[in-house]
Amino acid sequence: MTGREITLASRPSGTPGEENFALVEVDVAEPAAGEVRVRNTFMSVDPYMRGRMNDVKSYVAPFAVGAVLDGGAVGVVEASNEPMLPPGTTVLHGLGFRDYAVGPAKLFRPIDATVAPASAYLGVLGMPGLTAWVGLRVIAECKAGDTVFVSSAAGAVGSVAIQLAKRTGARTIGTTRSAKSAGVLRDVLGADTVIVPEEGRFASQLRAAAPDGIDVYFDNVGGEQLEAAIGVANDFARFALCGMIANYNTPIPGPRNIVQAVGKRLKLQGFIVTDHHARLGEFLAEAGPAVGSGELKALETFVDGLEQAPAALCSLFAPGAHVGKLIVRL
Amino acid sequence: MTGREITLASRPSGTPGEENFALVEVDVAEPAAGEVRVRNTFMSVDPYMRGRMNDVKSYVAPFAVGAVLDGGAVGVVEASNEPMLPPGTTVLHGLGFRDYAVGPAKLFRPIDATVAPASAYLGVLGMPGLTAWVGLRVIAECKAGDTVFVSSAAGAVGSVAIQLAKRTGARTIGTTRSAKSAGVLRDVLGADTVIVPEEGRFASQLRAAAPDGIDVYFDNVGGEQLEAAIGVANDFARFALCGMIANYNTPIPGPRNIVQAVGKRLKLQGFIVTDHHARLGEFLAEAGPAVGSGELKALETFVDGLEQAPAALCSLFAPGAHVGKLIVRL
Repeated sequence: MTGREITLASRPSGTPGEENFALVEVDVAEPAAGEVRVRNTFMSVDPYMRGRMNDVKSYVAPFAVGAVLDGGAVGVVEASNEPMLPPGTTVLHGLGFRDYAVGPAKLFRPIDATVAPASAYLGVLGMPGLTAWVGLRVIAECKAGDTVFVSSAAGAVGSVAIQLAKRTGARTIGTTRSAKSAGVLRDVLGADTVIVPEEGRFASQLRAAAPDGIDVYFDNVGGEQLEAAIGVANDFARFALCGMIANYNTPIPGPRNIVQAVGKRLKLQGFIVTDHHARLGEFLAEAGPAVGSGELKALETFVDGLEQAPAALCSLFAPGAHVGKLIVRL
Repeated sequence: MTGREITLASRPSGTPGEENFALVEVDVAEPAAGEVRVRNTFMSVDPYMRGRMNDVKSYVAPFAVGAVLDGGAVGVVEASNEPMLPPGTTVLHGLGFRDYAVGPAKLFRPIDATVAPASAYLGVLGMPGLTAWVGLRVIAECKAGDTVFVSSAAGAVGSVAIQLAKRTGARTIGTTRSAKSAGVLRDVLGADTVIVPEEGRFASQLRAAAPDGIDVYFDNVGGEQLEAAIGVANDFARFALCGMIANYNTPIPGPRNIVQAVGKRLKLQGFIVTDHHARLGEFLAEAGPAVGSGELKALETFVDGLEQAPAALCSLFAPGAHVGKLIVRL
């Protein structure tokens, strides 16, 4: 049998375009002993994939030109040579951006699609959700009474961070890039204050939103928002540096007020979710039931069809193109 | 009786000049009940005093124009209305930049001038020493086997940080601004590698000095050295942000590579020594005997005469003007 997959046709410079990707038809191997074949149903579209398109050493290996863009995915086992994963099992894995994934059973983790819809395991209950939880709880040590600023707060990670901060008893401020996602952030996620940043004016916007300063900054953006956060930070504020999407495609100036980190005793700490994988169980024990009860919202935008995956990937870097977790549905 | 004191004549903009200070003659009050009069013998000249010359809220109150520049000092009690501090007692206090200090006994802390020379309590055994100890041990969690980079390593704080890092079993890299202080750093303090930064070339200089990266950066400088340190940092490196003298007088660009803090999981943390005053005893228990035995060197530059204090203060911001702790001797 054959299936389709998305490969990296060439390395983008700056913002990726659809010409950097190709849709190719390939033979799908029969599963060998201990292996399974999975038909993918949902695929995760993630900002960190941009970094893997460059030929530089980072915390994840770069994609090879001509090779498939293996990203996160959910699928259903169709053929199995492993009794622990019988056909019909819903699994989470890292062999996305293709119709069919074939590999040893240990690469596929069964998920409970009765607790929450399977797609949630790519977002609020998956890597983005755990990222938000680790950044907020472990790195930024968020506590009740804090004022918490989350950038890109209608995004996959930010939408969970905002909700977890509220659950912790914090006052929340979130930024997002469109009026539409601002509405979602306020009305669906319950952010206390929502800002749509205006270039060159963000520092004063944030100051107006946080007259008593901020205690935690969950940074998904970097650039002007990071600088503004340093400017309004209270003494001993904690910054969880999760990603800096503003820096992914083009270089931007560093925070000119970094010297304030001394006088204010700020802690700025970068983190990567994979270092904290041991805490997945603890996270799911809290977040799973909360998603099931609807208390924690899964904010998702779906794009239909594998052939739409390159456009979806490119849209990640366009303002306000989607809210929450961006998912390709097959 | 009368005495002289140094006052702030006007607020400097940019690098301070001697015209910003005045030497005035004042009446010295008689000590009241519970008070002492101290004849100052050594006065501390500190970079943080530059911040106090601006009329902005910081972690220490600004100096008032026309008021004395109260800084750290050591002196000898000459007249006393407090039995705990009899005449002849050597004391450490915060009423410097004047010939005589008069005030309640609780403002003066007796020091043991038999363990180390009295001037050491302004440097290696004083605030700069405790600063180095807190930054290295508490904030940066320096351990044996680390590669530690200290900027301004022949300065009051840096010279102690370099020595403490060596004592911890770390490999040390230090920067300093003159060939003369580079020699001191290498030969007296025992730094493994010494760099005299060349503008625009520092990143490659540091990379050559640290082919295996750095694990700890003790930042006294900010600017280009901070950016270079981020560039060569190993995963999970810890940055103790102690001061950024490059930023004190004129604004400079922030680190353009701050995004690397995410992938490398860096921790950048600002600190102020006064938050850690409770650990002074622990620090002195380690450092006192080490200074006494000569194992920990007190690097000091003396300037003679109160009237030289303004010039000394201005020279803090000139390249390579002194090594170690800058002290005015009366």
